[in-house]
Amino acid sequence: MKKPYLLFLGDAPDQLAAKTATGIADWRPEWCVGQFRLPGCGADTGQKDVSIDEAIDLGAKTLVIGVVNSGGFLPDSWTDAICVALAKGLDVASGLHGRLQDFPAINAAAEKYGRQLHNIRLSEQNFTTGKGIKRAGKRILTVGTDCSCGKKYTALAIERAMRARGLNADFRATGQTGVLIAERGVAIDAVIADFISGAAEWISPANDADHWDVIEGQGSLFHASYAGVSLGLMHGAQPDLLVLCHEPTRTHMRGLPHYPIPDLTDCIALNLANAKLTNPDVRMLGVSVNTSALTEDEAERYLAETSSRLSLPCLDVIRGSADGFLDHL
Amino acid sequence: MKKPYLLFLGDAPDQLAAKTATGIADWRPEWCVGQFRLPGCGADTGQKDVSIDEAIDLGAKTLVIGVVNSGGFLPDSWTDAICVALAKGLDVASGLHGRLQDFPAINAAAEKYGRQLHNIRLSEQNFTTGKGIKRAGKRILTVGTDCSCGKKYTALAIERAMRARGLNADFRATGQTGVLIAERGVAIDAVIADFISGAAEWISPANDADHWDVIEGQGSLFHASYAGVSLGLMHGAQPDLLVLCHEPTRTHMRGLPHYPIPDLTDCIALNLANAKLTNPDVRMLGVSVNTSALTEDEAERYLAETSSRLSLPCLDVIRGSADGFLDHL
Repeated sequence: MKKPYLLFLGDAPDQLAAKTATGIADWRPEWCVGQFRLPGCGADTGQKDVSIDEAIDLGAKTLVIGVVNSGGFLPDSWTDAICVALAKGLDVASGLHGRLQDFPAINAAAEKYGRQLHNIRLSEQNFTTGKGIKRAGKRILTVGTDCSCGKKYTALAIERAMRARGLNADFRATGQTGVLIAERGVAIDAVIADFISGAAEWISPANDADHWDVIEGQGSLFHASYAGVSLGLMHGAQPDLLVLCHEPTRTHMRGLPHYPIPDLTDCIALNLANAKLTNPDVRMLGVSVNTSALTEDEAERYLAETSSRLSLPCLDVIRGSADGFLDHL
Repeated sequence: MKKPYLLFLGDAPDQLAAKTATGIADWRPEWCVGQFRLPGCGADTGQKDVSIDEAIDLGAKTLVIGVVNSGGFLPDSWTDAICVALAKGLDVASGLHGRLQDFPAINAAAEKYGRQLHNIRLSEQNFTTGKGIKRAGKRILTVGTDCSCGKKYTALAIERAMRARGLNADFRATGQTGVLIAERGVAIDAVIADFISGAAEWISPANDADHWDVIEGQGSLFHASYAGVSLGLMHGAQPDLLVLCHEPTRTHMRGLPHYPIPDLTDCIALNLANAKLTNPDVRMLGVSVNTSALTEDEAERYLAETSSRLSLPCLDVIRGSADGFLDHL
């Protein structure tokens, strides 16, 4: 994919709906020339707002659709903007479930102007079923009380902290945003169900004994929509260590208003019980709390109380760093 | 799909490899004219061996590929036989992961002779993510200590016993063999991972308050290759009752010689812990034991001991019937 990127946010209703754009802006800002938003957009990556013409003047090569929609349907306003970008000289990359080529107007514009369409979520790799055989190297997997609560940011922050200490560590992407940031990996929720754990094994192959894979988790064992993906990924990942990610102000599971957020103790227990299948020695390294909705005082208090209650390190790896986890490796 | 069927067993090495053919022969023998086997075949459905010509004389309309292969590859000997069947007048149905149309020789023969190719495992339905909302009606889900240990047979036997008592019950198929037997359903292991629980919700929609869905389980929460599918199916199914299926002579998980069969008590506990997410009132109805490898005396002793140890009804629903479960509804 040609860089730099123009981040397309469409009319994303809230910040989480634009989490692909936000992830790239937060972790690879040097790859971005700005963001392009449509009227009604409620998200903001912090990048400057630019038009498609301004983005091209700034050198943009690819429009990255950095927002999720529901059900694979694209509103006309998005299609129009995407076609304008293609006409004016940008390639387009998407993390949607469907192929960009399947939208006739987009496909026609790409063919007419000779542009590339990249479908990040669709891997061309053929996977096999998981084998469950122990692999060399060490692995950390981030798991969550819910979706979209910090599993990718936590894994990236742990990779950064490990590398800063001279450890041999690689972030392993399992979702479209992670794949865009790492420029490799597999969006595991788009794999055929039979091959979830096989794809996770492929993402994190055998490695040097002192090498750490820091694997991005997906969903939550407590999310009624996605827990199958979370479990298959966990079994394929064979983690030595889990880090539980949590957003403490959320009142219900994302997208499921009738489901409460699980208790942290229950969540730790069920994750360890399931992870033991492919690694009986798995243990919980700590809890990564996304305190962005709390004041600094509230955050400090929450982290201290939770750490004391669970007897585990509890950190905000973005407000602070992931160093506190590494001290317990 | 046009009936009757000729069951194709290829060179299936053992009985379990031909479980699609066996399932049809056992549950819908009136749809079959016989079985067609290649040299080296180690499986037997009990149907009479016939050639393709004999099958056509007996009225066969469709060759059903009743054997699983690994990795979507078809040996030349299978392709040749399938093409002969197409040339001589049969349609072909397959439960393989790939499309029959993607094998050039098969596709060419089907086009040349005007035959239909049916891909049972590939649903044309577009699914959404699971919603986890409670649905009317009652649901039983069969779960397993392992793959291929009797989940489909148990669900079919429960449906039969319920209907014999005048209960309003439907078997719900979630695998290719079940779909062939029920002539509806979805092979849930072939669905995109994000939609496993959504597909399970679609398979078992809201129904009358006194209606029972008897849902075929897949894999096992203890199978390192497939547990993600098992969990997503469980969450979408929202079972009121689980029946644990078990084959007592197996020494390791199917396909994973380094994984032991789980203890029944552990298996019951983990299944209930996970199923509670979408139905907090779920309970274990009993254990369905496939005693086909035991003598009658051994089977009786095993069932009595296990029932006493677990304080649950333990039955062989094929050697006996599923009535013993219904007494505990």
